[in-house]
Amino acid sequence: MSYKNYEPNWYTGEVPPNSYRSVFKWGDPAQIKAPRERMFRDVIRRFGIDESHFHQYSQPLGLEEVKFDIPTQLDEKHIAALKDIVGADFVRTDDYARFSVAYGKTMYDILRARNGIVENIPDCVVYPDTKEQIEAIVKYASEHAIPVYVYGGGSSVTRGVECVRGGISLDMRLRFNKEVRFNEVDQLITVEAGMSGPKLEEILQARGYTLGHFPQSFEYSCVGGWVVTHGSGQNSTYYGCIQDIVLGQSYATPQGTITTDTHPRKATGPDLDRIMMGNEGTFGVLTHVTLKFSRLMPQNTRRFSYMFKDWPTAIEFARQAMQSEAGKPSVFRLSDAEETSIMLNMYGIMDTPLKHLFKMKGFKVNEMCLFLGTTDGEAGFSKNAAKKLAKIARAHGGLTMTSYPVKRWEHGRFTDPYLRDTLQDFGVVMDTMECAVNWSNMAQVHAEVREVVKNRPNTVCMTHMSHVYPQGGNLYWIFIILENDAEEFRKFHASILDAIQRSGASMSHHHGIGKMFGPWLEGQLGKNEYAVIRALKNHFDPQNIMNPGGTLGLDLADEDKRCLK
Amino acid sequence: MSYKNYEPNWYTGEVPPNSYRSVFKWGDPAQIKAPRERMFRDVIRRFGIDESHFHQYSQPLGLEEVKFDIPTQLDEKHIAALKDIVGADFVRTDDYARFSVAYGKTMYDILRARNGIVENIPDCVVYPDTKEQIEAIVKYASEHAIPVYVYGGGSSVTRGVECVRGGISLDMRLRFNKEVRFNEVDQLITVEAGMSGPKLEEILQARGYTLGHFPQSFEYSCVGGWVVTHGSGQNSTYYGCIQDIVLGQSYATPQGTITTDTHPRKATGPDLDRIMMGNEGTFGVLTHVTLKFSRLMPQNTRRFSYMFKDWPTAIEFARQAMQSEAGKPSVFRLSDAEETSIMLNMYGIMDTPLKHLFKMKGFKVNEMCLFLGTTDGEAGFSKNAAKKLAKIARAHGGLTMTSYPVKRWEHGRFTDPYLRDTLQDFGVVMDTMECAVNWSNMAQVHAEVREVVKNRPNTVCMTHMSHVYPQGGNLYWIFIILENDAEEFRKFHASILDAIQRSGASMSHHHGIGKMFGPWLEGQLGKNEYAVIRALKNHFDPQNIMNPGGTLGLDLADEDKRCLK
Repeated sequence: MSYKNYEPNWYTGEVPPNSYRSVFKWGDPAQIKAPRERMFRDVIRRFGIDESHFHQYSQPLGLEEVKFDIPTQLDEKHIAALKDIVGADFVRTDDYARFSVAYGKTMYDILRARNGIVENIPDCVVYPDTKEQIEAIVKYASEHAIPVYVYGGGSSVTRGVECVRGGISLDMRLRFNKEVRFNEVDQLITVEAGMSGPKLEEILQARGYTLGHFPQSFEYSCVGGWVVTHGSGQNSTYYGCIQDIVLGQSYATPQGTITTDTHPRKATGPDLDRIMMGNEGTFGVLTHVTLKFSRLMPQNTRRFSYMFKDWPTAIEFARQAMQSEAGKPSVFRLSDAEETSIMLNMYGIMDTPLKHLFKMKGFKVNEMCLFLGTTDGEAGFSKNAAKKLAKIARAHGGLTMTSYPVKRWEHGRFTDPYLRDTLQDFGVVMDTMECAVNWSNMAQVHAEVREVVKNRPNTVCMTHMSHVYPQGGNLYWIFIILENDAEEFRKFHASILDAIQRSGASMSHHHGIGKMFGPWLEGQLGKNEYAVIRALKNHFDPQNIMNPGGTLGLDLADEDKRCLK
Repeated sequence: MSYKNYEPNWYTGEVPPNSYRSVFKWGDPAQIKAPRERMFRDVIRRFGIDESHFHQYSQPLGLEEVKFDIPTQLDEKHIAALKDIVGADFVRTDDYARFSVAYGKTMYDILRARNGIVENIPDCVVYPDTKEQIEAIVKYASEHAIPVYVYGGGSSVTRGVECVRGGISLDMRLRFNKEVRFNEVDQLITVEAGMSGPKLEEILQARGYTLGHFPQSFEYSCVGGWVVTHGSGQNSTYYGCIQDIVLGQSYATPQGTITTDTHPRKATGPDLDRIMMGNEGTFGVLTHVTLKFSRLMPQNTRRFSYMFKDWPTAIEFARQAMQSEAGKPSVFRLSDAEETSIMLNMYGIMDTPLKHLFKMKGFKVNEMCLFLGTTDGEAGFSKNAAKKLAKIARAHGGLTMTSYPVKRWEHGRFTDPYLRDTLQDFGVVMDTMECAVNWSNMAQVHAEVREVVKNRPNTVCMTHMSHVYPQGGNLYWIFIILENDAEEFRKFHASILDAIQRSGASMSHHHGIGKMFGPWLEGQLGKNEYAVIRALKNHFDPQNIMNPGGTLGLDLADEDKRCLK
């Protein structure tokens, strides 16, 4: 990097192949991202610390080889049977293979991994090649009551992949990532659930299409994970969330195979696609997924940004925009005052003549809110949507900020997670939470949850909405704290979940529930409502072998649940 | 009417208040619709019959008072308990009340009603006033194992309302039709499930909004029926099918109340709204429904129609239009050659100079296909969508037919069902079937099902698609036959369902399954897939008291099922 003043000794060295760091570090082992000087100065200012904090690492770097003493509990005959199904080379019981699928990417995971806390690992890792192999594995596991977990892209931030009861983890990355069918007439593609975001887009874009599903985890998440957790991408306002994109699934469950059809709409009883989606591996293993795709028309994308004088005005703009019926925008990202102030700094906007404009208009840092947006689709559609949005922005006193902030945001949209590891070496923890809200209580949820987060001294709390609808949207929090202890982190995290539940929002918009949010789910949905999910679980998996150990809260004792409403 | 030549003596007399005709006749008792002369001539020509067929009625008119000898089986103490819940005036056991909720509006129902076949009536009819009353009734019925049926608008064409096991029918029309909550900020309205289409639109339009849900049954169907059967309206391509419009429901089930939240999207396990929708009363009684509404902007509606030279070209136009991403049209109705030839005749288009244009272009009657469309939404959006659609139509050789056919269609869109009763007095039966298909097998399904229908001599078989998506659409058949016998009609109907299932389409796009299609559902979905719906049924209603007797095929013996795939 090229700091003008003191720059910490960011760890940019090698990530040894079998090390803890190679597991917990985000993404490409060779890619490292350090904060720009401006951001670094902003962080230390906000934390009230000085440069000396960065004179030494406060977290283990995790460069040592993964090694632990937890023997495989699975009988040799089971290992042999699994090898019969997938081939001898594709069942592993070594420490590295087992640890590499144990954790996801929430900070609780990374704090444990850095500090050598190894728990909830599988007895063996299986690398399936085909749908039929997975069906055979689930059948075998069912006959012998062996727990089955799935590791897709590994980007879970809800402890979704953790093998609390040992057993088998299916690592989909190696082989279960192939194209199955391409139907251009119906604009449908069928793929194996382990296919990664970039591979799918490569296949589609080479043929002139796109899925339009770009979560921040895009590069290191997979189709199956998107579907079973109810994921959504940063362009979901136009392309839809994953449930709008999926049209056909196949699952291997202890009750046999479940396959849904690909008719675009039907009135044939409760919708099986939607009964299965969101089960997070507790009903069975997702194998094949059929997805709708759209035309790739990047030439029609329009980019724009506006600054609003404060959060209430910005929310009102967002609501009016989503209720205008002028065509849905693609990216729609509205930052609150704290996030805006950090972005202004990061993007260097306060060093430009714009600062005079803000002053003239009476816009204040720590009050004003930045909106970034794009439109997609056919040329006339995209143009009209952008034009109408500009009109609504102006009617709410929005100042146009050109396309520059959007381009800056696009530049970092998939690489920002790399910053987390670099900063965390010095005890600076960045993590996220999100929820779904109606417009009528958007301001209240924002205020209540923010108050709880800010209650912790020296906490950066940035909020934006990034998925919007005529009836409401999500609120997404990025918080930055100084914390070295996994359990302390977990307590802080839980206090935010409590706040979300008390505020009346839905406690996840697109991250899912996993094992980390599991204790809150029954309280969120209600007792009778939650019993429906449990009934489905009991139907598919009466022995509780599919992702057991708290996923969706299904096998938690009542005293381990949080019902605050 | 004003025929130039012989006109049958259409029955235009009174419909006595307590008569069979008052039950089976469509809609407003005072409204009667006879075919125009042109249509009448067309029908007799196609049937190969002559005017003498119409010299006398071939069906009973059903003018006598409803009267039968089927005593109520329900114990007096149960009647008293129900009166305690809803008030003494709101429980009825007289013949007329019981018969009036026994049948829906498929031709099998009407043939039975005309011919005095009374079966599957409830023991008593209850007229609830509140959600709490319905919850108390379901609780009571559950405690005493009394079957519970629901009669909403009564427009079921799947025998959805029939009280096969007697018990209680909840008639929602009288009192359970009130507004509960109106939330303008979130564009959400909550209503009691028995609210009718016109009442809901009146409430919304008075405030500048619309639901945009206009099925042909609009005037005599209700919100609850739309939701539990997965209905969709003629403008669904823009406004969405009912599952896109509902955001929040409450049900009274034997397992207690189920209430979903109104957050616009969430990742909190399988979607409860979608688990409940489409249950057709087999899980519980839908009480409150929260619906998204849109701005009412009739000034932005654009109307247009195009003629295509043949069905394959027309299908290709439809697919391209739906995959263009230029904004979804609102009405999208594409008729096949037979339907087109009848519409040309009905609308008198072949008497205009257009016939010369068709000749010049080489378009042939019995080959060419008529498309009717509208666009809605914000002005620029609607304009762009219409413009792009026109461009795609031209690229497929479509001839513009102006907005005239759309206006003619709009004129009759809700009143065409009145024709059914008038014609049926003379044994002319008009009924409908529909299915959901992907583009890639649209032509094949059309051909295969049509072949079966046309196998019956002298059958008029009109087909259109009226709900379209980037991945496919529906096919909707209107068939006209000469038939006086209910059982013969049912056999013919079943042969069409067989053909739909064999062709690989989904056997209902928006009519639902009810008891009439129930035998086919397991074959349609597959054994393991169907078992999921049964598991939900067993959870909610282990005693099988909710709409029992074949609804969704749930309590049918295996030998009564049709699995043809």
